[in-house]
Amino acid sequence: MTANTFGNLFRFTTWGESHGPAIGCVVDGVPPRLALAEPDIQHWLDRRRPGQSKYTTQRREPDAVRILSGVFEGLTTGAPVSLMIENVDARSKDYGDIKDKFRPGHADYTYWAKYGIRDYRGGGRSSARETACRVAAGAIARGLLNRDLPGLTIRGALVQIGPHRVDDDKWDWAETQNNPFWCPDEAMAAKWADYLDGVRKANSSAGAIIEIRAAGVPVGLGTPVYGKLDSDLAAAMVTINAVKGVEIGDGFAAAETPGHEAHDEMRRGDDGQVRFLSNHAGGILGGISSGQEIVVRFVVKPTSSMPRTSRTIDVEGNEVDIATTGRHDPCVGIRAVPVGEAMMACVLADHWLMRRAEIGPADPST
Amino acid sequence: MTANTFGNLFRFTTWGESHGPAIGCVVDGVPPRLALAEPDIQHWLDRRRPGQSKYTTQRREPDAVRILSGVFEGLTTGAPVSLMIENVDARSKDYGDIKDKFRPGHADYTYWAKYGIRDYRGGGRSSARETACRVAAGAIARGLLNRDLPGLTIRGALVQIGPHRVDDDKWDWAETQNNPFWCPDEAMAAKWADYLDGVRKANSSAGAIIEIRAAGVPVGLGTPVYGKLDSDLAAAMVTINAVKGVEIGDGFAAAETPGHEAHDEMRRGDDGQVRFLSNHAGGILGGISSGQEIVVRFVVKPTSSMPRTSRTIDVEGNEVDIATTGRHDPCVGIRAVPVGEAMMACVLADHWLMRRAEIGPADPST
Amino acid sequence: MTANTFGNLFRFTTWGESHGPAIGCVVDGVPPRLALAEPDIQHWLDRRRPGQSKYTTQRREPDAVRILSGVFEGLTTGAPVSLMIENVDARSKDYGDIKDKFRPGHADYTYWAKYGIRDYRGGGRSSARETACRVAAGAIARGLLNRDLPGLTIRGALVQIGPHRVDDDKWDWAETQNNPFWCPDEAMAAKWADYLDGVRKANSSAGAIIEIRAAGVPVGLGTPVYGKLDSDLAAAMVTINAVKGVEIGDGFAAAETPGHEAHDEMRRGDDGQVRFLSNHAGGILGGISSGQEIVVRFVVKPTSSMPRTSRTIDVEGNEVDIATTGRHDPCVGIRAVPVGEAMMACVLADHWLMRRAEIGPADPST
Amino acid sequence: MTANTFGNLFRFTTWGESHGPAIGCVVDGVPPRLALAEPDIQHWLDRRRPGQSKYTTQRREPDAVRILSGVFEGLTTGAPVSLMIENVDARSKDYGDIKDKFRPGHADYTYWAKYGIRDYRGGGRSSARETACRVAAGAIARGLLNRDLPGLTIRGALVQIGPHRVDDDKWDWAETQNNPFWCPDEAMAAKWADYLDGVRKANSSAGAIIEIRAAGVPVGLGTPVYGKLDSDLAAAMVTINAVKGVEIGDGFAAAETPGHEAHDEMRRGDDGQVRFLSNHAGGILGGISSGQEIVVRFVVKPTSSMPRTSRTIDVEGNEVDIATTGRHDPCVGIRAVPVGEAMMACVLADHWLMRRAEIGPADPST
Repeated sequence: MTANTFGNLFRFTTWGESHGPAIGCVVDGVPPRLALAEPDIQHWLDRRRPGQSKYTTQRREPDAVRILSGVFEGLTTGAPVSLMIENVDARSKDYGDIKDKFRPGHADYTYWAKYGIRDYRGGGRSSARETACRVAAGAIARGLLNRDLPGLTIRGALVQIGPHRVDDDKWDWAETQNNPFWCPDEAMAAKWADYLDGVRKANSSAGAIIEIRAAGVPVGLGTPVYGKLDSDLAAAMVTINAVKGVEIGDGFAAAETPGHEAHDEMRRGDDGQVRFLSNHAGGILGGISSGQEIVVRFVVKPTSSMPRTSRTIDVEGNEVDIATTGRHDPCVGIRAVPVGEAMMACVLADHWLMRRAEIGPADPST
Repeated sequence: MTANTFGNLFRFTTWGESHGPAIGCVVDGVPPRLALAEPDIQHWLDRRRPGQSKYTTQRREPDAVRILSGVFEGLTTGAPVSLMIENVDARSKDYGDIKDKFRPGHADYTYWAKYGIRDYRGGGRSSARETACRVAAGAIARGLLNRDLPGLTIRGALVQIGPHRVDDDKWDWAETQNNPFWCPDEAMAAKWADYLDGVRKANSSAGAIIEIRAAGVPVGLGTPVYGKLDSDLAAAMVTINAVKGVEIGDGFAAAETPGHEAHDEMRRGDDGQVRFLSNHAGGILGGISSGQEIVVRFVVKPTSSMPRTSRTIDVEGNEVDIATTGRHDPCVGIRAVPVGEAMMACVLADHWLMRRAEIGPADPST
Repeated sequence: MTANTFGNLFRFTTWGESHGPAIGCVVDGVPPRLALAEPDIQHWLDRRRPGQSKYTTQRREPDAVRILSGVFEGLTTGAPVSLMIENVDARSKDYGDIKDKFRPGHADYTYWAKYGIRDYRGGGRSSARETACRVAAGAIARGLLNRDLPGLTIRGALVQIGPHRVDDDKWDWAETQNNPFWCPDEAMAAKWADYLDGVRKANSSAGAIIEIRAAGVPVGLGTPVYGKLDSDLAAAMVTINAVKGVEIGDGFAAAETPGHEAHDEMRRGDDGQVRFLSNHAGGILGGISSGQEIVVRFVVKPTSSMPRTSRTIDVEGNEVDIATTGRHDPCVGIRAVPVGEAMMACVLADHWLMRRAEIGPADPST
Repeated sequence: MTANTFGNLFRFTTWGESHGPAIGCVVDGVPPRLALAEPDIQHWLDRRRPGQSKYTTQRREPDAVRILSGVFEGLTTGAPVSLMIENVDARSKDYGDIKDKFRPGHADYTYWAKYGIRDYRGGGRSSARETACRVAAGAIARGLLNRDLPGLTIRGALVQIGPHRVDDDKWDWAETQNNPFWCPDEAMAAKWADYLDGVRKANSSAGAIIEIRAAGVPVGLGTPVYGKLDSDLAAAMVTINAVKGVEIGDGFAAAETPGHEAHDEMRRGDDGQVRFLSNHAGGILGGISSGQEIVVRFVVKPTSSMPRTSRTIDVEGNEVDIATTGRHDPCVGIRAVPVGEAMMACVLADHWLMRRAEIGPADPST
């Protein structure tokens, strides 16, 4: 059971609690002779780092990563890469209120009921802080993909907050770098800002939908039946905290599309390669990448922690009320964008290694 | 890589092609002394069997299962259970049209591009015929769950075909046994019949959404972070042919729900146990079952094979047209209901064994 | 847990009991476009087949293998290859004596104590009949190795029966095909024949040591630390019935060798490649193949079933006597030679695929 | 592929190089509510620590372990336990001689040939320093076994150095704590001291055989066929640096034992349980523990590094000479005793969890 490990050939194991001394991960299966240094990882961690706008938690973590193994003279050696990030701003405050009470919507109750113990400080192991490790592992995956598949790009955007969805016609990737929401639609970013101000005033929180796209993926990633590229991507995204759904390509809209408009016809491109006339499938057919852009979306539920009273019980079964007053993201989905990108990178890296194993030098596509 | 194996502790490996001599699976991790005979499996296979109404493929397969190992004097022994289903109605027809042409929306192109070879007869390994093995494995999983967790029930329903969604207020589980669609809403079943007649006349096909529910699941199934119950369920459903999305509980609707209405508050029930006041989470918090009903939905895209001309290419890259005239389900989603139930059963059985390993006799919940 | 599955990337899952309807295996991870037909497998099964001399069990099994999936028009497709061998000569005799009594030295007692049930007919799942599946899987592994690494050869020999060890100076591989013992030393084969006649007359049985050698293995198979080529080979051999020990290269003799005579010095060969001046290490250094011949030996204990009375207990704990009169090999080690070869082939195939994944096209050794 | 991970349900992933900043491991699958603090681990690390006698390397490492996660208020939480040991005495010396030359008998050549790069400092990843992590993980495994199976004990002894084997009749476990060799035979310890002095004067090194015994192991650990308790133990021991062979119970001596003396007859004990009349099998039958003492031996080849000139080549293929003058154990087998104990503990813990999963509350043996 891979309770704390993700991936098969390219895989990482994460550890650490929100308010423990550190968090980290061991990335195994990193091919040798890949250039790797701390700034290569720090670059991506900085994108996920909290406290960068008023729309994310005010916890101030530098998230400075250290490489403890697996790199020698600037190159990976094939040995596992151990990464560690110290927890700096884990306030030694009084946890009285959440110590004995189960916060609705969180893992508090289920962890306690299953394990009979829980590290309640900041959510312990179930804190979204764990996702920093995914971003770190994803940075290494990106490095591998960049080296071996130079044209491959992975990008993410927030496409919906609350009821407000971006206008696809106004999609501009460059815009995602200009606002605190990774929003590709300038007008929508302004609307979200207003909306979130209202949400905050109402002491509530907001859900979101994230879209991750990977272009330049070669045909042939993914294995048949139970190791499909899409099932691995689905699992990857649903392992992210608070994710309640995932879709590939047209996703749930495919239920309503007439069959004759739902599949992607093929013609021959000028380069002699297959050219698809649409991308309803989101770049994956029969579990295997088709060479088209891979399109995955996932939904993040509204942050469960809000400065508003909720009904719950405590560890002794008493009915009590709770209001969480700590530092939290009003829309935890915002910071899920770099996490989703990282998971996409790790899944693609894993399947890239798998294809090498399966097909080898006689690869028909090369 | 688990290309043809599903699960960890309770796990099965499937094999076989649509038009080969047989299909089958090896189910490993079946605990000993579980009563098991062929009719226990056949019962569930018969629910998935094709040719039972005009809305599913007219291929006539008895889908008669044989147990080849792992059972002795009516009880499992702990050894692997090998199941085999012979292919009877694999027509030895001329496959000329699909032999060299890639059917849009199918795995034809990607299998060929990856592996340099494909068994094109009826889709070969990528045929939905493989799902019979899942149903067979699921029957064993159900037997295990029934013995160890008597109150647990798994039920599935089709909740949408094309644009037509069932009315939740009219939901009647008994009704799912009265129509060929597993539809829980009598009026909607009639509407779907009309709708599918129209789809057929238009030489098109329809997508669908399936909902699987598991009640009576004990608290504590699922492991933290990368072996979440919901991520395993998501992967399970997306491995089913033609599935393009999956959601748990409120799913994508969670994006639009205000935070203060999105989590499930808790009170104490008359039995002294926790009682949730709603079930937005679909029975899973932090990856672990909460004791509430587990609710999963997945979308099946419209059948890609239609008796209508589509543009495609052939194995030599020529631009050609194709129309598939074989026996196909106009709405492949219908037969996905028992498959989704089976996958739910297998995931729960797997996590049930995992919880035994993790927690053991000192289980705090018992 | 891989209770019935062996291998990682090239892997097989076996099923079946000695006296059930059939035995078989599913071989997954077979690369595509490998020529494969039943005779390719039957050739190796025939070498392990019982009843071929008076020194092996007189059970008459044709061991005819059927390929049920994964092969299309003579080539593998990348889909799992399902193999089945029907049990023909499973005598429906009275099992009264072994039904309730535990045969000493067999798995009878431990299976029963663990699982609370056992298929006692011919040993059920714990019968050495299972090893036919290994030989079948090994045949596919050999096919893969032959195609991708043409110079690689795998050969096995029996090097000891009872106290009689072959003389290394008289080792002649060709001789292994001339006697019923896979003995490379003609004189010793004659001595073994006499010895086994005596063993049989004494109603006893004999142990044996098998040596498996693989030449032409490229440098670089094996992964560091926990997936060492030698640890995987050790596990592989110890999974064979009745094996009680395994050694690589000098093995246990290494304890007595002075350090300065124990390692393999290196010079440069005429081809510019490294040339080792000895092979104490058995072709593996630090868990990775060195390019030298891989040498593995394992010991098979004497057949536990003998026509002589032993003291035991029955399922109710009564003290009873037992004498097994069925058809058994007086020296079960003889038939372990092709099984050991097959396991070597499967381990090498698995690590060959793994190296492709790890190193890929930038393989420094090519 | 489990290149750096050991175990299935109880499993650990190690990382780190001999002369990097630190080494460590992540132990996953640790059941919750197990008392655990750093001294519980340090106790066992101190037994393996180098520099404690003149017979082991003079490298002075405190091997102080830190627990970074998975423990809360003195109890495990079910979350992964991350352990770190800083490298303190990694001398920043000139590695000139081993930087470009391959030390015979070491992994230098094979790592380089496979990965195209190697951290040559102190052997990098292939250094026996990695085994400290095994001992740390083993300490947690012991804690689990102690809690759940109170009568279980694991002990190890060195039974042979060079040609000198302990006298079984003089075996005294207490004696293993009185000499620097873990020798259970007082007279032999004195002889070994003399022998190793001679070895050192000869600028050579010595091999050794280690025996690990586990008493009080319940019947029923181990799974059939490919997850046998003995095959997992064999793999475990062979993953330890420099191990070239492993045997269970009688091991290789079983080849010479007549069959009628080789199996273990059974009678009924005074407690009504089975009583074996001997233990040739080493406590394992058919891959499953029998309740008897488990006996495993493994051989460690002589230390390859010696202050004496050997012939080798360098990275450019030139023929050169090398003499290693660093700090090394003249008999690396000595420090393998606590490592072998730790691997035994980890394998037993893993199979203990597996049995809980397989058999559950209906365990026939309880």
